[in-house]
Order: sequence, then C-alpha cells, then structure tokens
Amino acid sequence: MPRFSKAVSSLRSSEIRDLMTLASRPDIISFAGGMPGNDLFPVQAVEELYAQLDIKKKQAAFQYGPTPGLPSLLESLEGFLEKKGLPVKENRLLITTGSQQALNILAKAFIDPAEPVLVEKPCFIGALSAFRSYDAELRGIAVDSDGISIEGLRQEINRNEKAKFLYITPYFHNPAGILYTAERKEQLIAILQGTNIPLIEDDAYGDLYFFEEDQERLKPIKAINPDGINVCYTGSFSKILGPGLRLGWMLVPEKIYAKCELIKQSADACSPSFTQVLADAFIRSGQIYSYVAGVRQEYKKRAAAMVSALREHLPDYVQWNEPRGGFYIWLILPNEADATRIMTLAIEGGAVFVAGKTFDPAGRQNNSLRLSYCNNTPEQIAEGIPIVASAIRAVCG
Amino acid sequence: MPRFSKAVSSLRSSEIRDLMTLASRPDIISFAGGMPGNDLFPVQAVEELYAQLDIKKKQAAFQYGPTPGLPSLLESLEGFLEKKGLPVKENRLLITTGSQQALNILAKAFIDPAEPVLVEKPCFIGALSAFRSYDAELRGIAVDSDGISIEGLRQEINRNEKAKFLYITPYFHNPAGILYTAERKEQLIAILQGTNIPLIEDDAYGDLYFFEEDQERLKPIKAINPDGINVCYTGSFSKILGPGLRLGWMLVPEKIYAKCELIKQSADACSPSFTQVLADAFIRSGQIYSYVAGVRQEYKKRAAAMVSALREHLPDYVQWNEPRGGFYIWLILPNEADATRIMTLAIEGGAVFVAGKTFDPAGRQNNSLRLSYCNNTPEQIAEGIPIVASAIRAVCG
Repeated sequence: MPRFSKAVSSLRSSEIRDLMTLASRPDIISFAGGMPGNDLFPVQAVEELYAQLDIKKKQAAFQYGPTPGLPSLLESLEGFLEKKGLPVKENRLLITTGSQQALNILAKAFIDPAEPVLVEKPCFIGALSAFRSYDAELRGIAVDSDGISIEGLRQEINRNEKAKFLYITPYFHNPAGILYTAERKEQLIAILQGTNIPLIEDDAYGDLYFFEEDQERLKPIKAINPDGINVCYTGSFSKILGPGLRLGWMLVPEKIYAKCELIKQSADACSPSFTQVLADAFIRSGQIYSYVAGVRQEYKKRAAAMVSALREHLPDYVQWNEPRGGFYIWLILPNEADATRIMTLAIEGGAVFVAGKTFDPAGRQNNSLRLSYCNNTPEQIAEGIPIVASAIRAVCG
Repeated sequence: MPRFSKAVSSLRSSEIRDLMTLASRPDIISFAGGMPGNDLFPVQAVEELYAQLDIKKKQAAFQYGPTPGLPSLLESLEGFLEKKGLPVKENRLLITTGSQQALNILAKAFIDPAEPVLVEKPCFIGALSAFRSYDAELRGIAVDSDGISIEGLRQEINRNEKAKFLYITPYFHNPAGILYTAERKEQLIAILQGTNIPLIEDDAYGDLYFFEEDQERLKPIKAINPDGINVCYTGSFSKILGPGLRLGWMLVPEKIYAKCELIKQSADACSPSFTQVLADAFIRSGQIYSYVAGVRQEYKKRAAAMVSALREHLPDYVQWNEPRGGFYIWLILPNEADATRIMTLAIEGGAVFVAGKTFDPAGRQNNSLRLSYCNNTPEQIAEGIPIVASAIRAVCG
C-alpha cells in the first residue's frame, strides 16, 4: 500500500460524483447541477469566430502560452473587467484553469495544515474542497438574507489564532442564492480593515443579475478598492461563455500575484491556449455582452417559474429566497429536518437536488437544500417542484 | 504584507519566464523551448473534425465534464494506450490538464514537507517545480547514456529515510535526450521490487522515435507490469497533437487513482471539455497515427541537421548524445565550464538555449546545456549551431 501525504490521507470520496450520475439520468428532473443549460451555449457564434481567425492565431491555439495567460486575452479581459469598475491597472490578472483553480492556487498560497480559514455557512462546495485539500481548519460563519453575519465575523476575528483569509461569494451566492446588500459590504470592509486578513471575493455569478437597479449591490468590493485590505478577486467564463472551456481568473495585488504565478506554473504550466483564443475572440467581437444579456433574461424566466411553483406547492414553514440573479434557491427547513431523507423520497418521485450538509463547512447541518433552476425549462420546473414539495411534506409534515 | 504558507514562502521566481521571452524574440534563433513547431500542428484536420461533430457533441464541449475525463475520450484513449501494451483494464485512467498536472497531483498525493523524493539528475524542470511546490527534499541520481545510475539508486534506497517515490523520464529524456536500454529498465525494476517505493514513469516523448528497431527499449515499464511496484504512468497530448489543448493523463493503480481523482476535483473540477472533444475526434478518426508518423520524420530531419552541425562545429571536449527520438541534445562541457556565461555570449551572437543548472535538482551544476531542435528548420539549425559552438570555445577554450 502506498504511503500518501498527510493532507491527502484524510480526503474521502464525496457524494458529488453519485449526485452527478443521478443528475444525468434522463428519467429524473435534476435541480442538482450548477451548470448552465446546454441549449444556451453560443456554439454557432464561437465556431464562426474561430473560422475567421488567421492561421497564426489558430496555430497559437495549439501551442503553449505564457503562464499568466495569452497576452491578447489578458488585454481583452482587462477591458471587460474595467467596465465593472475593477482596478485592473493597480493589480495583476492571472488566467486560471477555471475559477476552481484560482481558489486552489490561493489556498496553496496561504494555507498551512491545520490553519484556520473563514468561510460562509453555507459555502460553495468547490471552495470547501480546495481548502480541505490543504488541510485547512474551516470556520463557518452564518449567512442571512443580506450577507455574512457581521457579529459572527467579529467573533472569529477576535479569536487568538489569526485566520489566513476570509472567502465569500457575495453576488448570487452558491448555494444560498442571496445578493449582499451595499450596507453589509461596508460593514464587512470596516471590520476587515486593520486585521491583515486577505479577502477572497468570488464573483462567478455577478453578470447574471435580473434587475438593473441592483448595480450598486453588485459592485465588487475589489472595485470599491478599500484601503488596507488585500482583496483577491476571482471570476470565471463558466457562466458567461461555457464551463467546458475551463477558464477563470484572479485579479490580485502584485505581491500575491508573484506567488500565484509560480504556483500556477507548477500546477499546469498554463491554461488551455485553445479555449483562451476562443474566449478572446468572443470578448473582442462584443458578442459576450449581447450573449450575457440574453442568458440573463432566460435565467430570469426560469427563476420566475421556480418561484411560482414554490409559492404554490411549498408548505409555509419552509423559508427561501426569491433570487435576484444567479442559479439558486436555498430552502431552509425546520431544525430537525433531514434533507437527505427528503432527497431519497424525491428521487423515487423523479426529481433530485443537493442536500444542505454538502455546503456546510462542518459537513453536518442538513435542514436545508439547494435547488438550481439554471438547467431546466419552465415546464420541467413546473413538473419537478411538486415532487420536491411532496417529499418535504412527507418528511416534515 | 500577507502571510504565505510555508511551502510557498520558499518559492522563488525561476529564470524560465525570462528565457521564454528571449526565445520568442524574432532576431534570436531559439534552441531553448521544448515546444513543437507551430508549423507542424494539425490545424486544418482538427477544424474539419470539429465541424463534422453533431450539435450534442459541440454543446458537451462547452459543458462541465466528469472529473476523470469525458467518457468518450477515456474510451478512445484507452484504445490508443492499449496498442502500446499498457494494462488499461487493470488500472484507472485519469485525464489531466496537461501531464504537468498529472505530476502535480501525484506530488500532492505523496509528498509531505521535507520528505525525500528520488529524481534523475538532470531532471525535467516541470517535475522539479511541481515537487518543490510541495516542499520535497529532492535527491538527484545521475543519468548516463543508458539510463539512471543503478548504483546511485541503490545508495539512495539504502538510506534510512524512505523516499516517497522515484520519478523518471526513460524515453527521450528531457533534458538528457537519452533512451533507457532494456537492460537498465530490468535492473531498475529489480532494485525497486520489495521497497514499496512507487515509480512515476513519465512518457511524454515516447511516440517520437526515429528508429523502428527501438520498440523493445520503448516498451513502458508500466507495460512490463512488474510485480510489487506501483507504477504511475503519465503521458501527454502535447507532443502528439498540441500543448495548447492542455491534455495529459495518468494510468495508475486503483488505490492511487481514488486519491488522485479527489485532488483533481479540488484542483480544477475537470479538464477542458472543449479540447477533450477535439482530442477524442482526432483519435477516433485515426488521424493521430498518420500525424504522429509524419512529425516523427520531420523531427528526425531536424535532429539530423543538428547532429551534422554539431559534428562540424563543436570542440572535441564536448560530450553529447545522438538522439534516437524526442526533442533534445544534451551537451556536457568540461567540469569548470559555466553554461550561463556561454549563454550570455550566445545571445549576443543571436542564439539561445537552456543552461544545465536549470535541470539540476540542486540548481547548481552548470557544465552542461540543453539544445532543442524541435522548433527550428534545418536552415535555422545550420545558422544557429555555429553561434553556440563559438560561445563554447570563447568560454572553454
């Protein structure tokens, strides 16, 4: 038997793979996956853009690129990010193999085994798995409808051992579905200033807003550019082009960048040139803007269908958010409820979702569940939600 | 100033980036890069293959895939590897984001800080950087024209503290250019049996052989399937399709696979679906076989041009290998020679290569240098080698 490293010895198979297998069964309506609908990808547009490239660009798509990213994409992506008010000139941009890799690189940059990191509760499972893989001690801080609990954050910051960073997903949270308020962001900034705790701000869903009036709430903390906080901003092409391209990024201060570039080089040398060439053409053509505007409307329709079905079918004791963007609705059930039991019943009925404990940093609390509407038509949603609601009633009364 | 993790604090910027910048200057003939020639990529063939795919396949190219790889590519790649005699049925195949990621994942699976790992001296720089990023203690074992020194290996194995693995690149070694003999492989197997030290066998160049009669020497140790050794076999599409696709693989025993899949999931969720779809189509069309046969002949021509120029221009005191495949010729200079000084002169003259210490696990020994012929026409080679030779004479006499 080979002798594994300490951090890895404790890694155990998660239920994610089994869920994904279920989610791909054609006889089951899946509210489980956090992936865009296959029908929404700009397949034809990208194929036409590629066909128009000259032979030098096409050859470069087959070749190694620089570790930080193809210069042309770095330039076009800077333009895209600058439109969000992000301080691209005073920071460094690193293209990563999905934003999952950005989180993994930051985890490697900061975490030594058994050191504490602060995360939201519930928290994005990909971040949990990246941080666990470096043997971090995860400290979950509750999230309410306005954002992370400031009181919970204060308590964690006042502990003796200083946390290595705080990780948050303020814009259409995965899985909690919420959008931080502007006030909560200001409180968060105030409490972090002077602590020397870096902030990892994960903005994978911010472009998928449903309401123009939310612009101020959507402004990244990185764009507010608060004094004295090392903000590491991460983003992704997964929701605005396609996750199969495996392209994300981080925008970070120079000193953090220098370490992250070295980690990236040792991780996979560079991100795929082929898909970088495609993403660059997609931005430069301007089609990214019209495409994102289109999917925004589509997800808004799907969300509305789910909201309407939940209003009709859910028992009153279930608390949930009406989404203002993104992919998710988070149901909070009575304290004693077991979402895994509910899921088993729902699967028998023909629908599936993700049980809440998957997103609990401690892997325990299970009186909640995540529904995704991103990958379903309004008809599938209308058919699937009654199955989920009736499974909830069967378990919770 | 942020507080970085211990393993990362010691990482320092390497000279690789500066070299690559030099290597891309149009006024300099570069023998530095280990990348295929841009002119050799199957750009048109791949574009036509993609155009013929149905819409479902094209949509899947934009979507997340399973962490181990797209099922269709796993199947076609198994067929490709089975033709090399590899035991695909008794092992598990994991698609990785380049073989660099395969090495990084294996490093994470096995290495705790300050633990020893055995590597060749000289050694592939990507492996060194992956192992260093987990703070391994690198123990270099000399390589001669037949392979790794068995006596050196025996000494390292007999030390008190057991090494976590042995890493080798037996087939057209990077940078040493050599092909292990069948006898050396047998000796290596004999000495590893009973030690419980896993073997990482990196076979990124094996398909690029120049002589049919080398088949036995090219047979992977993984295909010999020796009793009692956990062989972790890694490979890559970089040299047989294009590095810009960022696709590699590992073929490993089930127990090692289970950990590696979890590490992969936390690293970047899955490898790029887009390029996996392209690689799958390239294998299934059968074009991979004719393409590789073609580039083999091309690299053989380039190697012959370099051999001929070196014979004509190098001083007698330089030792070097005549390549039987792959990309590299390794020059060994007199003990006191400093390849960095030679490189400075060569750059002034208009040619560049990589100095030997880059490949030394200890980062010191510098009386050697690596020349790549993969990315140059015979004419460029005939023009550049005299520049290198005259820089050697200027420094070494």
